[in-house]
Formats: sequence, C-alpha cells, structure tokens
Amino acid sequence: MTIERRKSVDGYHRDGWNVRASALRELCNPIRRIVDEMVGCANPNKALISLAQGDPTVFGHIAPPKAASEEVREAFERGTHNGYTASVGSTSARSAVATRYSLPDRPALQIDDVFMTVGCSEALSHALAALAVEGANVLLPRPGFPLYETLCHRHGLAYKFYDLDDENGWEVKIDDVFRLRDEKTVAIVVNNPSNPCGAVYGEAHLRAICEACDTLRLPIIADEVYEDIAFEPSRPFLSIASFSGRVPVMAVSALSKRWLAPGWRIGWLVLHDYEHILQTAGVHLAITNLCQVSLGPPTPIQAAIPGIFGANETEWLKSTLNVLRCSSAYCIDRCARVRGLSVPCEPQGAMYVLLKISVDTFRNDDGTYDDVRFAKQLLAEESVLVLPGECFHAPGYLRLVITAPHAEQQRAWDRIESFCERYSSERKMTDSPKDLDAYVGEDLKQKLHLVTSHDDLVCKSLDAARTVI
Amino acid sequence: MTIERRKSVDGYHRDGWNVRASALRELCNPIRRIVDEMVGCANPNKALISLAQGDPTVFGHIAPPKAASEEVREAFERGTHNGYTASVGSTSARSAVATRYSLPDRPALQIDDVFMTVGCSEALSHALAALAVEGANVLLPRPGFPLYETLCHRHGLAYKFYDLDDENGWEVKIDDVFRLRDEKTVAIVVNNPSNPCGAVYGEAHLRAICEACDTLRLPIIADEVYEDIAFEPSRPFLSIASFSGRVPVMAVSALSKRWLAPGWRIGWLVLHDYEHILQTAGVHLAITNLCQVSLGPPTPIQAAIPGIFGANETEWLKSTLNVLRCSSAYCIDRCARVRGLSVPCEPQGAMYVLLKISVDTFRNDDGTYDDVRFAKQLLAEESVLVLPGECFHAPGYLRLVITAPHAEQQRAWDRIESFCERYSSERKMTDSPKDLDAYVGEDLKQKLHLVTSHDDLVCKSLDAARTVI
Repeated sequence: MTIERRKSVDGYHRDGWNVRASALRELCNPIRRIVDEMVGCANPNKALISLAQGDPTVFGHIAPPKAASEEVREAFERGTHNGYTASVGSTSARSAVATRYSLPDRPALQIDDVFMTVGCSEALSHALAALAVEGANVLLPRPGFPLYETLCHRHGLAYKFYDLDDENGWEVKIDDVFRLRDEKTVAIVVNNPSNPCGAVYGEAHLRAICEACDTLRLPIIADEVYEDIAFEPSRPFLSIASFSGRVPVMAVSALSKRWLAPGWRIGWLVLHDYEHILQTAGVHLAITNLCQVSLGPPTPIQAAIPGIFGANETEWLKSTLNVLRCSSAYCIDRCARVRGLSVPCEPQGAMYVLLKISVDTFRNDDGTYDDVRFAKQLLAEESVLVLPGECFHAPGYLRLVITAPHAEQQRAWDRIESFCERYSSERKMTDSPKDLDAYVGEDLKQKLHLVTSHDDLVCKSLDAARTVI
Repeated sequence: MTIERRKSVDGYHRDGWNVRASALRELCNPIRRIVDEMVGCANPNKALISLAQGDPTVFGHIAPPKAASEEVREAFERGTHNGYTASVGSTSARSAVATRYSLPDRPALQIDDVFMTVGCSEALSHALAALAVEGANVLLPRPGFPLYETLCHRHGLAYKFYDLDDENGWEVKIDDVFRLRDEKTVAIVVNNPSNPCGAVYGEAHLRAICEACDTLRLPIIADEVYEDIAFEPSRPFLSIASFSGRVPVMAVSALSKRWLAPGWRIGWLVLHDYEHILQTAGVHLAITNLCQVSLGPPTPIQAAIPGIFGANETEWLKSTLNVLRCSSAYCIDRCARVRGLSVPCEPQGAMYVLLKISVDTFRNDDGTYDDVRFAKQLLAEESVLVLPGECFHAPGYLRLVITAPHAEQQRAWDRIESFCERYSSERKMTDSPKDLDAYVGEDLKQKLHLVTSHDDLVCKSLDAARTVI
C-alpha cells in the first residue's frame, strides 16, 4: 500500500507526517495580544501588585457565604452526588434557578427554561452557539468583556460594536443599535452591571433598550453575572427581563461573581421566552444538544444550589458590597489627587473602575497617547499591573479591579501617583530610561506565577505567555 | 426606520420575529434516536430495572476511594481554591497528571503536555476540535461510544468506521485502518479498555496498532477513561502510548470511571508528542485556546488531584475490580443458561457486557432480527432497560452494564430469562399482545425520573425525551 506524502503549505510535514492544527490555533482573544507584551516587564526590584485580576477571591478578604461552602462540603461528604446528573442540569438545581429568576406578573419559569452550565462562560457560549446560523451577526457592547468576541469567533458569528456612552453612565447608545442592526443580526448582548465599566442601568434605560429591541425584533442576551453587585440602594440591580415584554431574553449568570466562587464552575442560562419565540425556533433543543455534549457542571456543587439560594446571606452581601463600595470610593479619591488621571463615570456596581488617561499629560512624542504604553510603563517602573482599556476596546482608559484589600490598593496608588508625578511634570512616555527587556530576570517567573495562578482572561493571557519568559 | 420583515423558510417568523436556532438543533446523538422511542414503554406493573446506565455510582455499592472524597471535601473546607486557576488547569494538577502518565524510557511529560478538562468528554472534544481542519476525517471504532460521532458533528469532522473483531477479543481490524485511511484522515480513535465491548488489548495488539499508525503517519486519540479497569492480572491495562514510538498520542482520561466520580467533571488530555509533531503543528496552542474559552474544570477538585493520585488505594481498586469481575461472571453465567442469547467475547475490563441475540431464536416475521425491537419489547414486558447494540453501531447485540449490585442483576436476569423463554418457545418478536402505547401511565414519570437522573448518554437521551411522556 502506498502512503501519500503530500506537501502541506500551512501544515507540518516531516518524515511524511502531515499534522495540522485547526483554525483554533488562531482563536482570537483580544486581551492576550496586548497583555502578552507586558509579561516579564515588571520592575524586578519591586514586588508585583496586580489590580488586573477579575477574580474576587484572590486576596481572601472577601469570600463566598459560609453557608454556600458548607452546602458544597456536605454534598461531597454525603457521597450521594458523585455520579452523572442530567446533562442540562439536575432537576433540583434547575428548579431552584427557575424559582429564583421567575418574574412578577409573568408565567413562572419552568425547569425546561433553565440550563446549568460550566460557569457563566459556557452559558454565554451556548446562548451564542444556539443562534449562530450562517452569516449571522450579534451586537456587542464597547467597551466590553472580550470573551464575547472570542466566543463569536469560536462559533463563526460576526459581530458589530455598539458604543456605551462614557458621558452618561456608560449607557447603551441606542441610536447605534438602530444603525447597526441588519437583517442578519440575531441578538444583542447587554451586560449589566458591566465589566469593565461598572455601570448599573436604571429602570428607564433598561426600558428604553427593551423598547428598541422590540421595535427591531432583536432578542437580548443578558450577561448579568454581576447581578446584585450594586453599591447604592437608590440604584439597585434590575434584571432586563423584567422590562422585556415580548422580547426574548437569554439571561446568564453564575456563582462566580455574585457568590464569589468562580472556581466552582457553576453557571446557568435562563430563557425568558414568554411568547415561545425561542422555543418554536428550536433554541431550547439546540442548547439541550450542546449540554449533551459537555454533560454539565459538577454534580455535587449543583446539589448545593437550592441550599445556597435559600440561605440567609443578607448580612454577608451587605458586608461584601460595603467592601467593594469603599474600595471604589478610595480609588476615585486617590485618582482625583493624581494629575493626568480621571474617573469620568464613577462605578455603580461590578468590580472595576475605568480610569481615563489625560491626553495632554501623557502625550507621546508623536502626539498620540496610548493606554497600552502607559500600562506597560507602569508595570516596568512600579510593578503595578493594570489592564489597558484597549483590552476592552476602550482606548485611553485603564481598568483597575476594586477587589484588592485596602492596604494593597494603598500601596498601588502610592506608586501610581509617583509614576504620574514623574511623567506629568517633566517627561514624555517615550523617555523611558531603560530598555524594558533588561528588566526581565529569573526571579520574575516566581512573581508572575502569583499573577498567573488567578483570574479569568488575564490569567489565561499571562499564563499562555508565561512560557515565553 | 423600516424594519425588514423577511419570510424565513426554516426559521420562525411571527410578528416580524425572525429567530432561528443554529444547526445545533440537529446535532446528532445516535443513542437518542433509538432510546427516545423506548421512553414511556416500561411495564407499569413492574418496577423498572436499568442495566443501561454507564454511571458506576448509581447504586452506591461501589464508590470513589475514601481518600479522594476526603481530599475534595477538605479543599472546599480550606476555602483557598474558590477562585480561578489557569484555564489549562492548575500547575499542581497538571504536574500530578504529567508525573502519573510519564512513560519509562521516554522524556518525562511536562505540564505543558497536560490540559485539565471538564470530564473526559471535554478532553475528547478538545482533541478532535484541535485537528478539525476543513475536509478532515477521523477513524472511529465500530462498535464504539457514540459521543465520538456527536463530537465529530459538533466540530465539522467527517468520520469513517473501522470494525472491531468480535471473533477475536474485539481487536481492531487493522486491514480496515489501511483501507479507510486517506489523505484527509487526521487521526484514529482507539478506545481501550473499551465501551461497549469490554475489550482490554494486549501488548502484541497495541504494538500492531501503533505500527500501522506509524506506517500510515496517523496520530492516535487514545480514549483510556477505563484505564486500570481490567479484570485479570494476566491481561492488565496497558497505555497505547507505551508502544507508540514516534506516533503522536493524544490520551484522554478522567476521574469519571477509574475513580468512580463522573459527577466531579475532572478529566485530562495528555499529549505524548516526543517528536514534537503536534507541538510544531500548533496543536498545543489550539487546545490552549479552547481551554481559554471554557476556563477549565472546578478548581477545588483540581486541588485534590495530587492527593487523589498519591493516596494508597490498592485495596480499594482490588475490591472494586472484584465486584465488577464477579458481576461480569454472573452475567455470563446467566446468559449461558438462556436460549437465544450468547456472549461471543467475554469482557476483560470496563463496565459492560455485549450480548449477542440469536438470529434463529428471535427472528421477526419478515426474517430480520432487531436488537432495538428486542430491547423495546423487554422494557415493555419486563421493565428491564438495556441498550440496543444499534446505539453503538453493533446491530444484533445488547449492552448491559455490570455496575449494578448482585440482587438487582439477579432480578433483571430472572426477567430476561423468562422473557426469552416465552419468545424462543412459541412466539415471534412481533407477536406483541398489546399496543405499547397503552402501557404509558402517569406513574411512569416518577419511575423514569429515577432513570433520567443518572447516566451519561442514556440519561441525556431519556431526559430529553421525558418531556414527551
């Protein structure tokens, strides 16, 4: 038998092996392109402080409710949940989710409207995949969480960005939605409370979005993973499904942020489909099929869901929100004292602050300013890691997490202040005194490991890049 | 602004809504087509006995090693693993996997060769997706686990079946592999120990497969999730990577079967790539990108992996294997006493027995015989649920699990025996005295719930179909 030894242009060909990786080797993750460049660039003489990681548990000062950990621990101890459950989720978990998210004045959600998923990312992935007909596009927020784009690439969906208004609480520019929607637009992703903006939309705005979507016949994918993380009682979190009328809403959330347990990998996708538009189109079936491929999230943790939702954690939530609110206030306060930085929109919820870099203060030699350059330089000189806004399509901004403890924030801000002082008073960004590469030392591997053992996209980015240093 | 109200042929169009589900609504799951028909067909006067569920934990008489449950429970108790870890897996878990699967006389596996996944199904999914270049095909075993096909559909891979030899320990028909491999064949899936066949391949056969793959330059995807589940010390489980020479092997396994904890959803993909063929082709990168979309399996359970691998569970394994061996022997013994059924190949491992239905005894009126009909009738009359071989592309066979406790097996076999007696002595399969639909009663919902709250593909199938009854 003759074995064909074909030459392959883009494949690997040696001794007759013709192994090629699929296009997934180019799966786009917008953060990585940017953050990869920063890895290995911290100042080896200063301990790294990361305000980049969207993982609320990193520092340990805030943690899941005790009852939640206890419920999960007990589920493992009982040993009665080691097997498979239904791939769409256990009946008890789905039922608890259906009850929790049922809306007043609407038919109660049924378990068939609920799909348990491996974290919120799988819930998002299933929602997008189920709508990914050939040629379809979705509307994504800008600034926005980069996983949306990555998932669109994964499922062959095109996307277009609608802008959020930084002069108006990062609200959706509804004119954009009307302008962008075309006959191939299958959904709009609305993220509230939002990453990276920290916006919490009020009732009037949520109604306005829903009215637009009704006019445009545009289903909503509601990323509400930061549900309830709203700092001011006067501006509480409101689910967009409450205002959606006949617009189908595919709402996703998880234990990751609201319950501070991203590592437990339990999320859910809830279909608010009161006119049976999704059901009739086969969306429930498509999602069921997807669940049957992945077989669902861990069973013992699913078993804990009714107990987790049922526990009285009012005090815990109040205290957690208080930590985040104080942290946000401190960040805003320090920023106000630093020349060249500002907070155009104070966060109202979620876990992030977006800082604006002043063009005048931090102009490059060529007249541009550049958040990537700023973040890289800040890391190189002060070992403070923040994410450039470019990661979220927010050029000119920096994203700082507010989930670090006070002392850590204080140290970071002292350094940021000193950094900005130096640059705003005398030097330009490009006056860097050293070749950045010279900073890269062996001991950084250890330090970077601290960074890379946490976080969602940041982690993945740094981790992938770690092999480089 | 005018909103286009397009008519859609295959979409849903009402009041201008043009929502369509993607092709995932037709994602093929070969079991479901068959098992869906059976749901609701048990005899309401007899309690359901299921020998269909590939979940070793259903009955509770075998369970994960105590140390494993303890490790996981402690990880949740410590509360230090609630956050994200790297999306490819935590360093400690990957390192433990690398150590466990490193081969004598080969370079030690590195953590970069290991990817932690959400169960074995995600490991398989990543392996196939990473190789799914346009037009590619893979070779799959027949009989075989239907998830392979489902995943191929999911990732746009074509597939061709090579046969396993039921007259020769269900060994791979290597001539088939030579005949089927074409220039677009990117891998062969080898499942050992095998589901549904229960084969455990010996050294000579594994060598022969590897030699064929070397000649054909064909990478191997080794599904070894039933590793170590081999009944006879004279025929132990051997990893195919031990014999693969320069053939790249993508080996997958999980805590699901070997450690009896499918609900924990921890699997791994190990790349044995000593000639750097996969690495150079970008396969590692493609898999990393996939992991970055799903963000990996639960962190606290990953944290337990080093402890789980390190614990002394020799006695536990011995005792578990003994239960399965006895169960298999009992099944074979009972089968030998039933006219019309036989076990052409006794299982040497895994958790299943394939029974052959005698053509002569169970011929239909039209001269055919039919395992689907047999299984459906057995369920209708005796409330014993077994899977027809057709689910695994093994027509004329039935798959029975050997993970049920002795008493349950005994009851099931008494009914199977009585069923076969009736048919072999006087009646033909199609002589069913009743309309099957008449059996469907309200109380079945409760009974079926027992079935549907467990199992992998069976569960999914029945669960999806449950809404029908």
